[in-house]
Amino acid sequence: MYFRLLVLFLLLPMAGKSQISQDSAAFLIRDIYRQSYTELIGYKWLTTLTKDIGNRLSGWEGDAKAVNWAKSVLDTIGFDKVYLQETQVKKWDRGENEFVMMISKEVGAITLLGLALGHSPGTGDKGVRAQVIEVQTLDELRDLPDEAVKGKIVFFGRPMDTGLPSTFSAYGGAADQRYNGPSEAAKKGAVAAVVRSLSTTRDDFPHTGLTLVADSLVNIPSIAISTNDADRLTSALKLGPVEVYMRMSCKMLGEVTSHNVIGEIRGSEFPDEIILVGGHLDSWDVGEGAQDDGAGCIHSMEAVYRLLKTGYRPKRTIRCVLFANEESGLAGGKKYAAEAIRNKEFHMVALESDGGAGVPQGFGCSAGENVVLDKHLAFMGTYMSLLEPYHVQLNPGGGGADIGPLKPTAGLLIGLRPENSKYFDYHHSHLDVLETVHPRELASGSAAIASFLFLVDQYGIGK
Amino acid sequence: MYFRLLVLFLLLPMAGKSQISQDSAAFLIRDIYRQSYTELIGYKWLTTLTKDIGNRLSGWEGDAKAVNWAKSVLDTIGFDKVYLQETQVKKWDRGENEFVMMISKEVGAITLLGLALGHSPGTGDKGVRAQVIEVQTLDELRDLPDEAVKGKIVFFGRPMDTGLPSTFSAYGGAADQRYNGPSEAAKKGAVAAVVRSLSTTRDDFPHTGLTLVADSLVNIPSIAISTNDADRLTSALKLGPVEVYMRMSCKMLGEVTSHNVIGEIRGSEFPDEIILVGGHLDSWDVGEGAQDDGAGCIHSMEAVYRLLKTGYRPKRTIRCVLFANEESGLAGGKKYAAEAIRNKEFHMVALESDGGAGVPQGFGCSAGENVVLDKHLAFMGTYMSLLEPYHVQLNPGGGGADIGPLKPTAGLLIGLRPENSKYFDYHHSHLDVLETVHPRELASGSAAIASFLFLVDQYGIGK
Repeated sequence: MYFRLLVLFLLLPMAGKSQISQDSAAFLIRDIYRQSYTELIGYKWLTTLTKDIGNRLSGWEGDAKAVNWAKSVLDTIGFDKVYLQETQVKKWDRGENEFVMMISKEVGAITLLGLALGHSPGTGDKGVRAQVIEVQTLDELRDLPDEAVKGKIVFFGRPMDTGLPSTFSAYGGAADQRYNGPSEAAKKGAVAAVVRSLSTTRDDFPHTGLTLVADSLVNIPSIAISTNDADRLTSALKLGPVEVYMRMSCKMLGEVTSHNVIGEIRGSEFPDEIILVGGHLDSWDVGEGAQDDGAGCIHSMEAVYRLLKTGYRPKRTIRCVLFANEESGLAGGKKYAAEAIRNKEFHMVALESDGGAGVPQGFGCSAGENVVLDKHLAFMGTYMSLLEPYHVQLNPGGGGADIGPLKPTAGLLIGLRPENSKYFDYHHSHLDVLETVHPRELASGSAAIASFLFLVDQYGIGK
Repeated sequence: MYFRLLVLFLLLPMAGKSQISQDSAAFLIRDIYRQSYTELIGYKWLTTLTKDIGNRLSGWEGDAKAVNWAKSVLDTIGFDKVYLQETQVKKWDRGENEFVMMISKEVGAITLLGLALGHSPGTGDKGVRAQVIEVQTLDELRDLPDEAVKGKIVFFGRPMDTGLPSTFSAYGGAADQRYNGPSEAAKKGAVAAVVRSLSTTRDDFPHTGLTLVADSLVNIPSIAISTNDADRLTSALKLGPVEVYMRMSCKMLGEVTSHNVIGEIRGSEFPDEIILVGGHLDSWDVGEGAQDDGAGCIHSMEAVYRLLKTGYRPKRTIRCVLFANEESGLAGGKKYAAEAIRNKEFHMVALESDGGAGVPQGFGCSAGENVVLDKHLAFMGTYMSLLEPYHVQLNPGGGGADIGPLKPTAGLLIGLRPENSKYFDYHHSHLDVLETVHPRELASGSAAIASFLFLVDQYGIGK
């Protein structure tokens, strides 16, 4: 009680237009962390999102339920207004009868564990069966003569490079196989594509994700197989010819409506300087979307909740945006940015959390168009030291998919950087469930963002 | 292959007495991390230590097996010599029939989940039954009149303050109840003590740990109960009088021999400047001692393995020490320091890993006697920036229990600081098992230490 009174006392000067001292700021940040670690409300919210609602593929029932739920939570937090922003999303259906098998004279017929890639077409009821050729890179595929590819199934077999310090870099270095591989194979006449799952472990869980399906191409059915099965397939191919038989009834159902969920607190002094914090509410249709990106939504919601709970009222406009359709088209992010640009809004800072529920190692920062990053980083360095006790730093390089389209109208684009050793063990698979999230680790993300919002609101980013 | 050749090429200048450039150092560190993340040998070692050997209470069979195993692994790493250092440890026996129950007119008789505290005496076959008084602090106990305590069971009920940024601080702020509480209660005539488990979660797992058993005191049986049961006991005490019945057959068996396990590489240029890296090989007798301190032993062993695997030969003497008896007397650390002081050795740096298997947030550093910390930190700042890409910093404050006794003869005492959100969920309980350890997270600790050893060996700590 004494402590809460003290916090309120420290906040009194903020009611006027003066800046509060860094000592008081440090005190406020300590309070934010304390309340985050002891109330653990974010974990309760995430439990509802993952266990009561579950996964949230764009355009499906879970997506709509999550929109309603998120709005209902934001309604309780203390925003000046909470509203939905309509956006059109492609609705894709995985179907029921995914099946994939490898057939080799040397090792026999082995069923593989696979998940169709997002937006892949199906195979028809009879499936597709063809000889497999493995490539390690898209360049290797492009260098092959068309006749070597025509009628074949192309297997993209390059593992993620887990020797890199960041698993995000390892993901970035391998994801072209999933995103561009199948369409490149289609161009050369392949009948289907198999992709080694983008995973940091060797196990039996396939990892799905979006593949590029261009309207102008003849698209081919494409599937991710588990890393263990990818190793099996690679081994079998070393022994002799291998065929793969795939059957999947996935299909695109067309465009439907989804929504960004937005909460806004109008700034008391600089209402035209917007500070955005967000994550994406949609997920893949396997697992529970706990890490990707339930955690980021919770971080964003709880950060504003925590900040307002201290009694602080922001000088700048703070907007919490839970984006639609990040996984399969980015329609939510594009729609939000289009509206922002049309309304000539200035996003001084747009911050996204889409790296899971690990303990933050800091924020990565990049600049909007015509913005010089270094001078802002130098200015913000004067107060970022307040987050050193929490091991949170601000470094160049970073952002987020949903906030990317804001670049023309933004000051700084910032991504939370959670510790990521395990993230790609779970990502886009049946393993991405609440049980991978630790309540205190999740809370440390919310607290880091709440503290950062406070600092940026209070001290700005410099001229 | 190309990469390995490049590393060897960069290391060529090290064969002479010149310092290598920071660019080459950065390259070597990148190689250390890459090999750590891809070979993951530490996890294999930890699997043997936890699953084949299991827990390792001082003086028991697991302790002896671990000593033999550790020596056999160090023998393969490339040390100039590997040897055992004998030390006498107290052998304590938990016994078989631990039982604790609360009896309240209001809530009935409820069996509690408890673990006798290390070095506690037993209760005798009949057990002890008495009325309970709860205190929150040792001061509160001391302020009670003796007659209010005499013949009672004292319950130390203060939870860890999980609102603090560091769970280690929360532990430090509550551990007096376990370590000093029972003996203080005995002084005032209590017949037994019950301690709320030092845990960051509310669950059904009791957490043991050492309690002070002074020879000059009449000692009393003392037991830790799970946090859920502590909450139950506190609630029951608010409704009316509560008795506790405890029965335990734990007892001290006397002194036996254990060993520190030591591997040494003699420095090529400055053999008298010793760089120590270590953890403690003993554990409590529940769980598998995976986090405490299997991880620290693996970090220390793998760090030297990794460094030597690059082809690097140290200029200074590097010693890997796996200490005996940290949990229940510190006999290993004291013996090692006594020998070091007797032999007039200078430990330029002594580094301990005893904070679990989480991803490092850096190193904490304190100074030996007559050593000025700030100037060394300033000097080391010139090269610590090489670890920034790995989110590893060097900050003031830190060390380790086993290296503490070296203070009179040491330069710097340094502790690895792993991220610790979950550590005290497991610590000293049945939950401290291999399954809580992630292979890549463990490897990041080994890589951080290997890189740090390299930097300190190469550039020193300044005058």
